[in-house]
Amino acid sequence: MRNPDPPRDPPLPAGGSEPRLSRASVGRFSLYLRRLEGLRGEGVRTVSSGQLGEALGIPDTQVRKDLAYLGNLGHRGVGYPTGELIAALRAALGVDRSWSVVLVGVGNLARALLRYRGFQQQGFHIVALFDSDRGKIGQRVEGLAIQGPEQLPQVVAATGAELAILTVPGEQAQEAADVLVAAGIRGLLNFAPAVLRLPAHVRLVSVDLAVQLEQLAFLVHVGSTE
Amino acid sequence: MRNPDPPRDPPLPAGGSEPRLSRASVGRFSLYLRRLEGLRGEGVRTVSSGQLGEALGIPDTQVRKDLAYLGNLGHRGVGYPTGELIAALRAALGVDRSWSVVLVGVGNLARALLRYRGFQQQGFHIVALFDSDRGKIGQRVEGLAIQGPEQLPQVVAATGAELAILTVPGEQAQEAADVLVAAGIRGLLNFAPAVLRLPAHVRLVSVDLAVQLEQLAFLVHVGSTE
Repeated sequence: MRNPDPPRDPPLPAGGSEPRLSRASVGRFSLYLRRLEGLRGEGVRTVSSGQLGEALGIPDTQVRKDLAYLGNLGHRGVGYPTGELIAALRAALGVDRSWSVVLVGVGNLARALLRYRGFQQQGFHIVALFDSDRGKIGQRVEGLAIQGPEQLPQVVAATGAELAILTVPGEQAQEAADVLVAAGIRGLLNFAPAVLRLPAHVRLVSVDLAVQLEQLAFLVHVGSTE
Repeated sequence: MRNPDPPRDPPLPAGGSEPRLSRASVGRFSLYLRRLEGLRGEGVRTVSSGQLGEALGIPDTQVRKDLAYLGNLGHRGVGYPTGELIAALRAALGVDRSWSVVLVGVGNLARALLRYRGFQQQGFHIVALFDSDRGKIGQRVEGLAIQGPEQLPQVVAATGAELAILTVPGEQAQEAADVLVAAGIRGLLNFAPAVLRLPAHVRLVSVDLAVQLEQLAFLVHVGSTE
């Protein structure tokens, strides 16, 4: 199962308009941020790269490389000031502001996401819910009334929402995405098991839950054959 | 926002017992597999690397590098035989078999996961549900009765479950993980917003939903400042 000369992962950007920071680095930035917020809550005022990496299982050298991207924040022998590092990471990630988010497809996953406090804590505010099921329209979930998709353009305009979460069934995903794009949404977090076609200016992050489970199976599988 | 000389992402493995294939490659393997299964459903018998990469937004060269890991499957000018490539990917990922999975923490997210057909299609079978809330024990969800955590060891032994999905609140995650590890579980898919400490032989994949939304915000943010 071992590959003697594995292909290296290139930085994510394929096209010219993508950021040079790889998506893997961005993922680690989020993890650092989460960990640092925990440490700040415990009153920790400076952290070392080792301390930060340890709980996350990320090697010291990788942490230092990643954080070098943020500029000269660390002090030799002292570490990084927790508050400054949090602020720099939030600015780099674009979460030093709040984002309005609309959600389309109000099933169990949507209900779970609406109760998930992590979004709010990171500045993501779900401002409106949409579903094409007439039977659901008007129902309230976590204080928000479910609206029909025909309301989408005016709600996006009125709230200034830039991001959308898509939790519809796979076969409805492209149509829902088209409506969101037409309404002016600029980024889609897609949970539907579907390959979406979007214009170049709209960003997409897809979460395929079966992929996550496959990654785990792979790690267990490889662990057991070595 | 651009980095003139971005750090490259090393292959994921930090320790000596990890596979050399990077986690990013494994993630792409899953995406190729999903796409190929779709193409096979449409009757496509051979595919080119370009065809495979296009819908996924992955460059041709990267697809060829990744698939080279599987051995010599492609034929110049003809492409890859769809069925053989699916079989090779399933074997490499460890999903050419079925996996029994237990789930701990039966809230909205768990209910969404239980209704998610993708797991079953990829050979993942959720065989038992656990919750520490006495009020939930005995309730049936998607045909499975919710059991108390004290039943875990015997159910894991009886079903031969190797994987677990953890959908408990963050503050209960470590305790639940400890019970699962003691019961013999070898891989954990963790949705709880918590950093888990696990013995080295137990594999962990964590899905932090706020991290996914942050990645999207980052892409939109960077797109807008260029």
